[in-house]
Amino acid sequence: MAIHFSEVLSKMKGSDLGPLLALTAQPDIISFAGGLPAPRTFPLKELTEVAVKVREEDGAGAMQYGPSLGFMGLRQAIADRMNRMYCPMGMDKVDPKNIMITTGSQQGLDITGRVFIDKDDVVLIESPSYLGAIGAFALEQPKFVEVPTDDQGMIPEELDKILATTDKVKFIYVIPNYQNPTGICWSLERRQKFMEVVTKYEIPVFEDNPYGDLRFEGEEIAPLVSMDPKHLVIYSGTFSKTLAPGMRLAWLVCNDEILAKMDLVKGSTDLSTPCVTQREVAMYMENYDFEGHIKENCKLYAHRRDVMCDAIKKYFPSDVKSTYPHGGLFLWVELPEGCDARDLFKYAIERKVAYVPGDSFFPASGKRNYFRLNFSYNDDDVIEDGVKRLADALKAYLADKK
Amino acid sequence: MAIHFSEVLSKMKGSDLGPLLALTAQPDIISFAGGLPAPRTFPLKELTEVAVKVREEDGAGAMQYGPSLGFMGLRQAIADRMNRMYCPMGMDKVDPKNIMITTGSQQGLDITGRVFIDKDDVVLIESPSYLGAIGAFALEQPKFVEVPTDDQGMIPEELDKILATTDKVKFIYVIPNYQNPTGICWSLERRQKFMEVVTKYEIPVFEDNPYGDLRFEGEEIAPLVSMDPKHLVIYSGTFSKTLAPGMRLAWLVCNDEILAKMDLVKGSTDLSTPCVTQREVAMYMENYDFEGHIKENCKLYAHRRDVMCDAIKKYFPSDVKSTYPHGGLFLWVELPEGCDARDLFKYAIERKVAYVPGDSFFPASGKRNYFRLNFSYNDDDVIEDGVKRLADALKAYLADKK
Repeated sequence: MAIHFSEVLSKMKGSDLGPLLALTAQPDIISFAGGLPAPRTFPLKELTEVAVKVREEDGAGAMQYGPSLGFMGLRQAIADRMNRMYCPMGMDKVDPKNIMITTGSQQGLDITGRVFIDKDDVVLIESPSYLGAIGAFALEQPKFVEVPTDDQGMIPEELDKILATTDKVKFIYVIPNYQNPTGICWSLERRQKFMEVVTKYEIPVFEDNPYGDLRFEGEEIAPLVSMDPKHLVIYSGTFSKTLAPGMRLAWLVCNDEILAKMDLVKGSTDLSTPCVTQREVAMYMENYDFEGHIKENCKLYAHRRDVMCDAIKKYFPSDVKSTYPHGGLFLWVELPEGCDARDLFKYAIERKVAYVPGDSFFPASGKRNYFRLNFSYNDDDVIEDGVKRLADALKAYLADKK
Repeated sequence: MAIHFSEVLSKMKGSDLGPLLALTAQPDIISFAGGLPAPRTFPLKELTEVAVKVREEDGAGAMQYGPSLGFMGLRQAIADRMNRMYCPMGMDKVDPKNIMITTGSQQGLDITGRVFIDKDDVVLIESPSYLGAIGAFALEQPKFVEVPTDDQGMIPEELDKILATTDKVKFIYVIPNYQNPTGICWSLERRQKFMEVVTKYEIPVFEDNPYGDLRFEGEEIAPLVSMDPKHLVIYSGTFSKTLAPGMRLAWLVCNDEILAKMDLVKGSTDLSTPCVTQREVAMYMENYDFEGHIKENCKLYAHRRDVMCDAIKKYFPSDVKSTYPHGGLFLWVELPEGCDARDLFKYAIERKVAYVPGDSFFPASGKRNYFRLNFSYNDDDVIEDGVKRLADALKAYLADKK
């Protein structure tokens, strides 16, 4: 047989997470594994209204091929919102011309990988970092270097050391707001110091901000893109967590030089993101109370975060630690040293509850004593029940381990 | 500055077609350059009805994350339609499990490039071939080998010779129905002989079929996928030309082994194509007369083809040849030997008419005495006027050349 795949695809067998996560789709399993928004947050009435209006008002435009960088009305609406939010924090005004619409932020990650990475180049990431980004970049076969990270974010001194001694660093990928998987939000001081280091070395940064709008408490902290005199930051935002992931709409903001390369890839990748959904969201932003809608989401998710954290406090063994995120969709659980969240997974599945084992978030170090929990998707009673089951699994696993 | 792009993106400057085609967007230019369907063919009333129904009936499902291979309802509807059309012609029944939904057929091309091509691998194509496919594959840096092609399609004996003597051929990319750019439809005999050669060498084939449904006259000719005992064909279909390109919906059909690789890339590329548009089209196929709609499109396009061909006959100099396609969106014009369609382009733009110069469709040979005309987009009088202007340009160019 003369079917020969490319080198990277020949090697790639698919994540061993696949079969494991397939288990979580069984209907009687309580899954904390996904990163799904709560369906009740989708503004269906409004999204139906704009669907009709877009087709009525300019159906021929919405249904035709569109520009590879995206529908200008949506790019303008995004620029306006970012400028309203971040210019007061010091961000240079974003021109809609510097925005590219992507089919979910995943596509922005993938295109970024192709624009920057050759085989054996280095990508720096938080330790741990988002597995979807790691998966997208992995198609270009880089080496991942995990930069030490604590509860304030990436540690700038460690980053400096690594940049001083590492060749072929193409960019740094970070999620400063309510990180996936940890839920950690970088402090202002950390962000400033991080950008000082980045500016010194002139290394591009991918600032992934899917969760910044899901802030439950505390003041908003300025994004990296507002501390970026050399325009090294590629900023990524998405409508998946604030509006609806099924629309698959996100965006990148970056400097002209990088954007031109991104656009070359985008055009060859899918010509453009669907015009019709872009127009729907642009019209939604123009005519409805998007900010009010986001506030409602935050209220719901803050409540569910509390339900989950209270249950954890009540039921989990005391030597199991977890984060208390002030936003986002996830919290991060640390097992005692020497434990393996993959082994624990079997105990959990027996009790019909699931999570994502943490090792996939550590592509270099592969640490095994962590796992990720999602608190946004399930109803209160399901969260409480699931945490109880997980506590049982933990107790049984820890007992057997002794 | 420490911004270093990947090797391929460092080299890639963007097609020099870009600035040239930008000219064609000027409002007073008659453009035959794009591949745009006629907006009046978009079934807006029906697409509005399904947009509302999908949101009302299962809005939460439509707006949530979906499976990377696509919405099963749409995959099933596509499998049913293909089986209805092609099983009587000998195709093995397509299982919806072997279908992947993509964001336009462009994404299927891009993913195929990533699944198969390493730098300096060989991709065989018709001479000439579709520039969007060439652009997508080019991101993986293959060598393109143009297989000699005549008015019956690719010449199997030439293909056999090339396969016998060429290393690292990863796949063959072909458009057997109303090809882009030539409008040529492969004869049945050519298809059979082509598949004999392919089956002998066991080389994967990408059968791109965006235009097969736009058949104006003659009997339907069996697709390559119906002559494929070894399941080497990756079949690609799209809704862009039959329904609306703004939905960005297309599909691939391939064997399990290839599909698994495609799926790995798809998941990392954008997680999935938008769920909401997938459900809309599935519902459209189920509840409306898709076949009747396609017939109406064909009637319109056949008429416009005739308007253009009649005008060409009437106005073009007699030493300029062109194809008379029996379907699709394009025809192909051949200038006398030694002419250059890029030079002619200046004469055309002066007279406010545009086309795509042919050299971009010949990535290896770069032949310059051809250009492509689209006949689907413009109204009758605009087509007639544009062809007249083009005839003027031709006459002036040929006179100056003497």
